[in-house]
Parts: sequence; structure tokens; C-alpha cells
Amino acid sequence: MINDEKFVKLKTIIEKELLNVFPSNLDSYQQLITDAMKYSLISGGKRIRPILAIAVFELFSVVDDLSVKFLSSIEMIHTYSLIHDDLPSMDNDLLRRGKPTLHIEYGEDVAVLAGDALLNLAFENMIKIAIDSNGNNSYKYLKAMNVIASSSGYRGMILGQIADIKSEGIKIDKETLDYINLNKTGQLIKASMLSGAIIGNASDEDLKRVKKIALNIGKAFQIVDDILDIEGSEEKLGKTTGSDEVNGKVTYPSLIGIENSKKEVEKLSMNSIKILREINADTVFLEKLILFLINREK
Amino acid sequence: MINDEKFVKLKTIIEKELLNVFPSNLDSYQQLITDAMKYSLISGGKRIRPILAIAVFELFSVVDDLSVKFLSSIEMIHTYSLIHDDLPSMDNDLLRRGKPTLHIEYGEDVAVLAGDALLNLAFENMIKIAIDSNGNNSYKYLKAMNVIASSSGYRGMILGQIADIKSEGIKIDKETLDYINLNKTGQLIKASMLSGAIIGNASDEDLKRVKKIALNIGKAFQIVDDILDIEGSEEKLGKTTGSDEVNGKVTYPSLIGIENSKKEVEKLSMNSIKILREINADTVFLEKLILFLINREK
Repeated sequence: MINDEKFVKLKTIIEKELLNVFPSNLDSYQQLITDAMKYSLISGGKRIRPILAIAVFELFSVVDDLSVKFLSSIEMIHTYSLIHDDLPSMDNDLLRRGKPTLHIEYGEDVAVLAGDALLNLAFENMIKIAIDSNGNNSYKYLKAMNVIASSSGYRGMILGQIADIKSEGIKIDKETLDYINLNKTGQLIKASMLSGAIIGNASDEDLKRVKKIALNIGKAFQIVDDILDIEGSEEKLGKTTGSDEVNGKVTYPSLIGIENSKKEVEKLSMNSIKILREINADTVFLEKLILFLINREK
Repeated sequence: MINDEKFVKLKTIIEKELLNVFPSNLDSYQQLITDAMKYSLISGGKRIRPILAIAVFELFSVVDDLSVKFLSSIEMIHTYSLIHDDLPSMDNDLLRRGKPTLHIEYGEDVAVLAGDALLNLAFENMIKIAIDSNGNNSYKYLKAMNVIASSSGYRGMILGQIADIKSEGIKIDKETLDYINLNKTGQLIKASMLSGAIIGNASDEDLKRVKKIALNIGKAFQIVDDILDIEGSEEKLGKTTGSDEVNGKVTYPSLIGIENSKKEVEKLSMNSIKILREINADTVFLEKLILFLINREK
């Protein structure tokens, strides 16, 4: 999939948009914060969330410039969450996407601020597009922003992070693990796909379908991450593996075993594809994308 | 002023709105992040920014529920910036508004996330209001959000913080100090007043006036802060004083002396009031507010 023509094309477009956001002709302080933001933003991520968002958008509408710009903002939110998650007071990670984490490279103070700046920039960017789109479309973008904002906040992704750090070293049950995964990972994936559907003008029925698909994918995605932490190679993943076991972290593999985890992933992805096929659209690319997400490289 | 009837009334309304944002019936993780957010949000701040915003709004329109809710969100942005500013890797402050800082009380990890959550919530709240306001008004709120987002981001408040931390221990000149103050403090004050004017439907001419006034006030406000750090009492300010001198920080008083700093404040505030009186509206309360800002208690 990483070599799939369309996947590569979308990834390239998204990365171009992410770079285009930043102006040139910067003074030295602007250069510093911009460099720090770009260091994490342009660092070989797979861009899963905006690609999912655009793939869903394309089920319902023909892709245009503003939509791509808008949906690329989700990657800024994802990236800020990684920067803050890596901080010494949080996961204290030294390596991310094969490079030293931002606080190692730029210092902890700049990493806190660059994370803040990326979250802020995501909204700045989405708001600007909602204004530029003018008239009726503004409202559509506002509705998408609403989903993104509530999914990434204290009742969404941040809630998942809180539950995660407060569960460290504790033998949590499956229900709590599902709660953490749903919020920490699932919510932003759900928001990506739903916002794609909203600005693609999906019907209410299809919005419900997309939501169901997203929740299945979000759950499967996190389980795959946990499996890769056991079976994956640091070289290919570009991050430290085996850390869950070292940290005594409860994961799907540790709760139900690695084979059952793989079966669960299989079930979730098949379920997603079943619902996806109920949508009257060309679902080929999104199906491929879903299968890729559960067969990521070790 | 702190006892002024209208000031107290606005402060009360804003604090009620800030509390009303949070739902009840929370699970334990939701309770934790909400408690942390509220700890810093509801902790005796003067609410200068939303009060300024509403005071400007009232120059042009009759205040209503949605506008107050919307403009109160600015206090969330201000509060998040204080939480992150106080972190060990930043200013490492132990005391804020007379209480232990959030990271002292809840731990550094929760403080990072609660700060993130407040920034996110500010946008969540503003977006929701823009949607609720429906039709034509959505666009007005979007324009206000645009000003707030760009003023608080990497070209605004966060830029000021970057410049500030990178100037520590360095003998910066007046130009750099003005740059730091403009961005770190001035931008959010400007955004508060401008967004009040925008959603109050001010004319383009008056928007320009408000912007000029805000830049004067923002500058004066920071100089007063620096003067209070020398002359103020910890008890009344609720925060550590004398820290600028201890940290070898360049401030207006250290650059041009305390008397000249006071003269500069006087000049800036008189200039603000002169421009304010060009606006055809009842400016009495805003004038009082400006005078209060430069005569804050020691």
C-alpha cells in the first residue's frame, strides 16, 4: 500500500499542503518555532488520518483544493499529540519516526510550545478555510471542525491520554483498555473519517455508516500497534519496540494473547469492509487502505 | 475597579459561563481532567481579557448570551498559556494566583494535558457557538475566531513565549523587548478587543481604532506587570514577585528605569483613551477599565 499509486499521491499532496502553511521571510524567532514545528510535522509519518479523511471524502464528492487543505490540518493535531506524549513527564520517548524526539532535538520548552503551536495552527488553518470557502460551505466546515475539536479534546483524545497515564503499572481490565484505545486513538480516527464525510456532503445514513466503520478501524489500528510493539522491528517502525512489555503495559496481546488479538483485528476490519460496501460509491481505495492498516509492516 | 459594580457583574457572568461549559455526570477520568482544568480556570483570575472583549462589544451592540459565552473562551486560552508557562521546563513557577501551580498540585503530565485541553476547549466552545448562532452570524464568529487563533499561535502569543525563553539571561535591547511584549501579552489582548468589536458589528473604521487602542493597552499592561514585579506585594498579586530581577530578566524598568516606565504607561493609556473617544459610543466603562489596568494594586 505504501507503494500504491494513489496512496503515494495523496501523501505527497498532504505533505505539500503541510509545508505550504508556513510563510517564508521569517525573523529568527519565527524561524525557530517554525523549524521545530516542521521537524515533527515533516518527518516521515504515514499520514493515515488525513489520507483516511480524503478517502472518505472521495466516496461522496470530487476532491478539491480547500478540502485537502482542511483535512490535512488533522495531521497537525496528531503530530502535536505525539510531541506532548513523548515529553519526559509523559512517555519520555527518545525516538520517533526514526529521529530523536522534538524535546531531545530542541529542548523541552520548545517542544511544549511547538506542540501547542501545532494544535493552534490546526484550528487557525481550518478556520481560515471555512472563511475562504464562503457562504453555505462555511457551515459545512464548521460542522466538521466541531467533530474534530470535540474528538481531540478533554472528552476525546486528551481523555484517552489521561486514562492511559493514570493506568500505568496498573493491571487494568479489557473494558478500561477499550476505553483508553477508543479515546486515545479511536476518536481522532473517527473525527478524520467523519469530517471527510461531512465536507463531502454525505447523507445522514452514510454518516452513521462512516462512524461505525471508523470506530472499528480505530480499535483495530490500536491493536495492530500493540502487536507491532511485540513483533515489529525498530528499524522499519522507526520507534522503540518492546516498550509495552518493559513498562508492564496492559495491551490486547497481554490480555487475550497475540493470536486472539490478530483474530480480533481480522474481525474488526472485515466488519468495517462489510459496512463500507453498504455505501453506494467506489469503495475500492478505502478498502485497500483498511486492509493496509491491519497488515502494516513489521 | 475590582469593586466597580459592572466589573463585578461581568466577572461573575464570565465565571459562570466558564463553569457551565463542563458537563456533570463524569466518569473518574473525565472528572480528573475536568478538575485539573477547573483548578486553573476557576482560581481568582481578574478575567481582564474577556471583560475587555465584552466592554468593546458593548460599544457597538447590546450584549447577549452567545457573545458572552463566545468571548469567555479567550480566558481558556489565557489560562492554558499560564499553565504551560509555569511548567518546570519553562518558568518553573510554584505559585500562581495565590495557589500552587497546576503541575505542583496534579503532576506535570496532567498539567501538560490540562493546558492542551483548555486550548482545545476554547476552540470547541467557539465553534459550537458559531454553529448554534446559525446563518449570517456564523460568519461573524468565524472572523472573530480567525483573529483569536492567529493571535494566539506561532505568529502571536506562542512566538512571544519562544522569544521570551530564548532571551533569558541575554541583555536584549528595547526593540526585542517590545517584540516579546507585543507577542506574548499584546496579541491576545488585541484579539480579545478585536473579536469583541467584530461580533459587535463594529465598522471597519472602528475596528482600526480598536486595534490601535488594544496595542497601546497591551504594551502598557505588560509594563505595569513588570513594575508590579518590583513594587508589588506577593500577597496582593498572589504570585512570586522580584523574580525578574533574580532571573536577570530585561524589562522596561530595568532598561529605562521605573519612573520612565510609569511615564510610558501613562502616555500609552492616555493615547488609548484619546482614540477611544473618537468612537461614537458610550465609552465610560471601557475608559474606567483602561485606567484600572494601569493602576492595578501593588
